[in-house]
Amino acid sequence: MEIKVLKDILSANDRIAQRNRQLLDSHKIFAVNIMASPGAGKTSLIMETTKRLEGRVKPGVIEGDIASSIDAEAVGKMGVPVVQINTGGECHLDANMISNALGSLPLPEIQVLFIENVGNLVCPAEFALGEHLKVLIVHTPEGDDKPFKYPLMFHAVDAVIINKIDLLPYVKFNLEAYTKTVKSINSQVAIFPLSCTTGQGLDAWVAWLVEMASSLTR
Amino acid sequence: MEIKVLKDILSANDRIAQRNRQLLDSHKIFAVNIMASPGAGKTSLIMETTKRLEGRVKPGVIEGDIASSIDAEAVGKMGVPVVQINTGGECHLDANMISNALGSLPLPEIQVLFIENVGNLVCPAEFALGEHLKVLIVHTPEGDDKPFKYPLMFHAVDAVIINKIDLLPYVKFNLEAYTKTVKSINSQVAIFPLSCTTGQGLDAWVAWLVEMASSLTR
Repeated sequence: MEIKVLKDILSANDRIAQRNRQLLDSHKIFAVNIMASPGAGKTSLIMETTKRLEGRVKPGVIEGDIASSIDAEAVGKMGVPVVQINTGGECHLDANMISNALGSLPLPEIQVLFIENVGNLVCPAEFALGEHLKVLIVHTPEGDDKPFKYPLMFHAVDAVIINKIDLLPYVKFNLEAYTKTVKSINSQVAIFPLSCTTGQGLDAWVAWLVEMASSLTR
Repeated sequence: MEIKVLKDILSANDRIAQRNRQLLDSHKIFAVNIMASPGAGKTSLIMETTKRLEGRVKPGVIEGDIASSIDAEAVGKMGVPVVQINTGGECHLDANMISNALGSLPLPEIQVLFIENVGNLVCPAEFALGEHLKVLIVHTPEGDDKPFKYPLMFHAVDAVIINKIDLLPYVKFNLEAYTKTVKSINSQVAIFPLSCTTGQGLDAWVAWLVEMASSLTR
């Protein structure tokens, strides 16, 4: 008897994520899904990165929050195309929310799209959005034990940004040990210690991002 | 025609939470559900509070995490009865997990039970566990815009602890404005600015907790 190998049936979310990806690719837009704890610095990173891309790469932003439009307003003031998604209780963005948001953005004017996920180290890691790159921001005040507590998130991402290194003298965070731990969970991950307050380390991150974007969209 | 008013059917979670509450009450145990972002200081607060309860109130702890037993080990070293729950992916504790954990604790030896929820400002607010008190810990490095972004959490809690006030000189956090914002969302909430690192403000919180526990379990 011949055994039929059934193809994996993609979940509804994954199918929509795939369509998002096709739409993004057709516009040569490189999409970055940015995840973090609340207050780790997602909006700050997007704003500081956007400043440094000026004249080189045209940015766009999707802001995800349970409620409020504080972040979208801040980004909008910089003259960057932005859409705010309010999930109304959902603790993560999903592909359908992104699909709707893409319909509200001027896609031909965007080359790198930052998607700021809901502040949460758990569920955002499980939902594909159609992005090209998954980035996790951690911040030094949250302590250095998070890789053990949220392993899926650290497995899932392409880069880990360690924000607020300007606070290292005041908090319990061993940067060297942390880097080793993250690499032991995810050996391929790129790690960028930086501070959105002082600017230290931002250039290395932006250079890497531009390189990643150009290699995938050229 | 007479219209029958159907009684609300409690969800499965709420029914189990109610049973947990009955079990806790029968042992005169006052249970505190502690919620926060990852790294805001839930375990630190539990440990510092426990130290200050010594000789007055007998503590017990339930630790909730996606993975790892780091926190339970730290608490266990203090000689406090503790159970670790690993949710295995779930982003919050639910009443059934607590029901199981209560079966592993020496209930007659406990007067105040700290339940450390998963680090997340979203879903933990939606799940009753059978607790007497809901406490949110925020920390100054996460910034002062969180009440607008996670309104349900700020609505749901009886107390907000503002941890890491020792970092106020180094971060963007307006304590006075923050307190006003929280009160505008939840006028009944008690607010405790403190630092688990320096100990500042801890006595006021512990005194309030002891008062709340005694008024409900005497």
